[in-house]
Amino acid sequence: MINFQTTPNEYKHWKLEISGSLATLSMDVQEDHTLADGYKLKLNSYDLGVDMELADAIQRIRFEHPQVAVVVVTSLKPRIFCAGANIYMLGSSSHAFKVNFCKFTNETRCAIEDDSKHSGRRYVAALNGTASGGGYELAIACDEIYLVDDGNSAVSLPEVPLLGVLPGTGGLTRLVDKRKVRRDRADVFSTLAEGLKGKRAKEWGLIDDHFPTSKFQEGIDARVQQLATKRTVAGPGIKLNPLGDYKYVKLELKREQRYADLTIHGPEGAQPTTVEEIHELGDSYWPLLAYRELDDALLNLRVNEPEIGLVCVRTHGSIESVLSVDQTLVANRDHWLVREIILHMARALRRLDLTAKSFFAIVEPGSCFVGNLLELLLASDRSYMLMDSGAAIAVSEMNAGALPMSNGLTRLHSRFLAEPAKVDDVFGHKKSFDTEEAEELGLITFAPDDLDWEDEIRVAIEERTSLSPDALTGMEASLRFAGPETMDTKIYGRLTAWQNWIFQRPNAVGPEGALTNYGKPTQAHFDFKRT
Amino acid sequence: MINFQTTPNEYKHWKLEISGSLATLSMDVQEDHTLADGYKLKLNSYDLGVDMELADAIQRIRFEHPQVAVVVVTSLKPRIFCAGANIYMLGSSSHAFKVNFCKFTNETRCAIEDDSKHSGRRYVAALNGTASGGGYELAIACDEIYLVDDGNSAVSLPEVPLLGVLPGTGGLTRLVDKRKVRRDRADVFSTLAEGLKGKRAKEWGLIDDHFPTSKFQEGIDARVQQLATKRTVAGPGIKLNPLGDYKYVKLELKREQRYADLTIHGPEGAQPTTVEEIHELGDSYWPLLAYRELDDALLNLRVNEPEIGLVCVRTHGSIESVLSVDQTLVANRDHWLVREIILHMARALRRLDLTAKSFFAIVEPGSCFVGNLLELLLASDRSYMLMDSGAAIAVSEMNAGALPMSNGLTRLHSRFLAEPAKVDDVFGHKKSFDTEEAEELGLITFAPDDLDWEDEIRVAIEERTSLSPDALTGMEASLRFAGPETMDTKIYGRLTAWQNWIFQRPNAVGPEGALTNYGKPTQAHFDFKRT
Repeated sequence: MINFQTTPNEYKHWKLEISGSLATLSMDVQEDHTLADGYKLKLNSYDLGVDMELADAIQRIRFEHPQVAVVVVTSLKPRIFCAGANIYMLGSSSHAFKVNFCKFTNETRCAIEDDSKHSGRRYVAALNGTASGGGYELAIACDEIYLVDDGNSAVSLPEVPLLGVLPGTGGLTRLVDKRKVRRDRADVFSTLAEGLKGKRAKEWGLIDDHFPTSKFQEGIDARVQQLATKRTVAGPGIKLNPLGDYKYVKLELKREQRYADLTIHGPEGAQPTTVEEIHELGDSYWPLLAYRELDDALLNLRVNEPEIGLVCVRTHGSIESVLSVDQTLVANRDHWLVREIILHMARALRRLDLTAKSFFAIVEPGSCFVGNLLELLLASDRSYMLMDSGAAIAVSEMNAGALPMSNGLTRLHSRFLAEPAKVDDVFGHKKSFDTEEAEELGLITFAPDDLDWEDEIRVAIEERTSLSPDALTGMEASLRFAGPETMDTKIYGRLTAWQNWIFQRPNAVGPEGALTNYGKPTQAHFDFKRT
Repeated sequence: MINFQTTPNEYKHWKLEISGSLATLSMDVQEDHTLADGYKLKLNSYDLGVDMELADAIQRIRFEHPQVAVVVVTSLKPRIFCAGANIYMLGSSSHAFKVNFCKFTNETRCAIEDDSKHSGRRYVAALNGTASGGGYELAIACDEIYLVDDGNSAVSLPEVPLLGVLPGTGGLTRLVDKRKVRRDRADVFSTLAEGLKGKRAKEWGLIDDHFPTSKFQEGIDARVQQLATKRTVAGPGIKLNPLGDYKYVKLELKREQRYADLTIHGPEGAQPTTVEEIHELGDSYWPLLAYRELDDALLNLRVNEPEIGLVCVRTHGSIESVLSVDQTLVANRDHWLVREIILHMARALRRLDLTAKSFFAIVEPGSCFVGNLLELLLASDRSYMLMDSGAAIAVSEMNAGALPMSNGLTRLHSRFLAEPAKVDDVFGHKKSFDTEEAEELGLITFAPDDLDWEDEIRVAIEERTSLSPDALTGMEASLRFAGPETMDTKIYGRLTAWQNWIFQRPNAVGPEGALTNYGKPTQAHFDFKRT
């Protein structure tokens, strides 16, 4: 049972130092503190446990240290920044675990870019030594990359030449799409096990600059100084306490039937309406706590419950309370804390979009699929809403752009690609809809009446959980992301799919595969058929 | 050895009838005329041989019957349009063959859309019976879909529920991206083995209309009549003769070293400058014949030479002659024949972009990587150009948009995403470049001098062909298509990658897999772990 909750004083592998507007995140992986047996985390290589700490640190900087303008990502190990994902961990992991590991590390790197893009924090990768594989992929998720010139240190993506797999954490995509490295140079770089050093790495656009060892700290400090001046947000932040037992989210596992009921409870009692009151409540404020619990539940489902193939999403609570929370969020969205809360909700919802489980939204009387919680329904593969029941769904301004999908569209836009005018209809003067209206507008999939309700849902669950889980994953990944593509969707859709394929291939994971044989006296042998 | 060349009088499975501005392409698959043993092509199901005829017919309509305004795609079998790819063929094929089969059928469907988009021909799928799986995917590649209402006929994508694989010929992508079917409805449809019939299929956007059996032909005729009026192009067309021995393309296989030299020879002697002269030359006109041979060589490499991992692309001929051909093409691009020739060149080059082999362009004295042939260099993963050798490369107007990649960009734009101004530099007053200039401009990857040339190329070939073919395929698919995405790149990049993954999974192809067990008395059993 893997637990995704951690705090800085529990970190084994990272040191987070805050000094005014500067945060320094230093990697110092303890090789024996692994999440599983059978490997050692040498040379700042990482496993899921290391990345959980990184994800936590980034989240914490945003909420606890809002004044931070620059985050320097570096290492405390001499001559090595980070050697990437631990190869023996990968070699000994199940396919399902490898895929989930890569997805989580991708989400962590996208969270860095989300912070940079939406909260204006600059991430500086200070490569005091070699950054290879996932180490360089971490660097390339930062805004700027500086490499020490010690005659030895390089950046590299040795996965293809050494392991027969892809750099699976967005490296290939970011090379050509983010840093816009020329494709032929990207090809050379990605097949060159030893990578490139200072001057050529800069010329090819792989790093922003390089400094000799004696000037490295000075160079980084000077750049940090330049970047730090722009920040206007002042603290104090709010503390993110460990989640403990969920307050607003209930996860009921029906393991024998391979599905789960995931219920999100709306806010209860009076809700704050001013920034001061929100700040006072801190991490117990409903939209923050409920979505942190949702996020945690999704990670738990992915990694600890692989056989659960379907999640029935339900909501319970007062429609008015959810809508009034939305009103407060929208009214105060320019304040840093409210902005961070909204951005966190958006990330949790994207985590759902990217989860390889089917989702059915179930709308009954007493449910509150409205405003921000309506996104759960729109993110689901299908929805069922009881006819003539008094159940209602409703939109708020939160559905109009605050919570975008990875493809940059709102979930309403994604839904109505054929009839964009319908999005305006939904936001027309009538913003709340009973079952008949919701069906007419195309907001829900099915609207069974009382007589059919239980049977229809039971049969739908049975049918869905009887299908091939692999085919469903590929199908959902294709149908959920219609319309435009972004770097994020390219990473999750295209790169991940290729990596999943390669992770299945004998050339990587068979007895003679490159991943299997890495570091062993035996040699990899390939079936050279190209497909 | 699979031969991709065919002509209508050799067709076994399709009947092509031309009547004025109407072409009727009727599927009537002969179940015993299979490309391999072990399966029968029942119910208008298809194998690669059936699709090769379809690809040929579409190509032939464009060149031989330019006056055709509407192509009706239908079937001569009662109550069945097409049952899709033959499942027993898939079940008994190697992974490599399955992947190449899907790629070719995808290219055929994209060629239909290319004809529709660029040559204005309308494709009408007249579904006189059920269209399931690849049958519906063929229909959805057409502009319009009409289904008979006989109480029985339906459209369906039963791959996920019945076979545990994806509809692998673009169906999922076209559902939500082309026909913009609501994603929850697409989800329901793609998991419903029996599919949907007339009224609901129309309501959900899966078809354009439906007619009762007695009115079906009448309904199709009326629609064809409406569509046919707009065409202004008149014939006569030119005949596409069988290729026979290549005249301009030379393919030298170094099977033991797992690479091939592919040399394209430039035009020889005087070239036509008017449309009349081009028409007279017909299919022996250099840009048509050379690119038909190139296209055929690529298909041959893919399907018949799976172990060839690297193709060294070379050109030989007169720079001036190639540039003068380009000049003629550009000057006459509004004429239907020249337009078709250019569009065909563009498709052949895209076939190269999408080929799962590495490509290195080798530029030496005597080569003619200029204008349209420069695209071969730009499409390659890397290029090597001999320094101080008199070798030159050059651009023509053909590089400025006539030959786009699947992502809609020119190959020059794709190359210079980081510095779009460089594209303008390349088209500046100096349009021809020696090695030093080409390197300076970033048009080539490496420029070894005479002393290093042979060694550097030999080592590069040895290194490339020693790497994992799977990792290279995933890497190249990622690096070749930076920048924007289109429906085509989504189909080839995202959908194909997921399908390749699923085609490896035990849940599909293992002894208890759904594909393996389809139609057998034994039942599929799944490992339900979701990844």
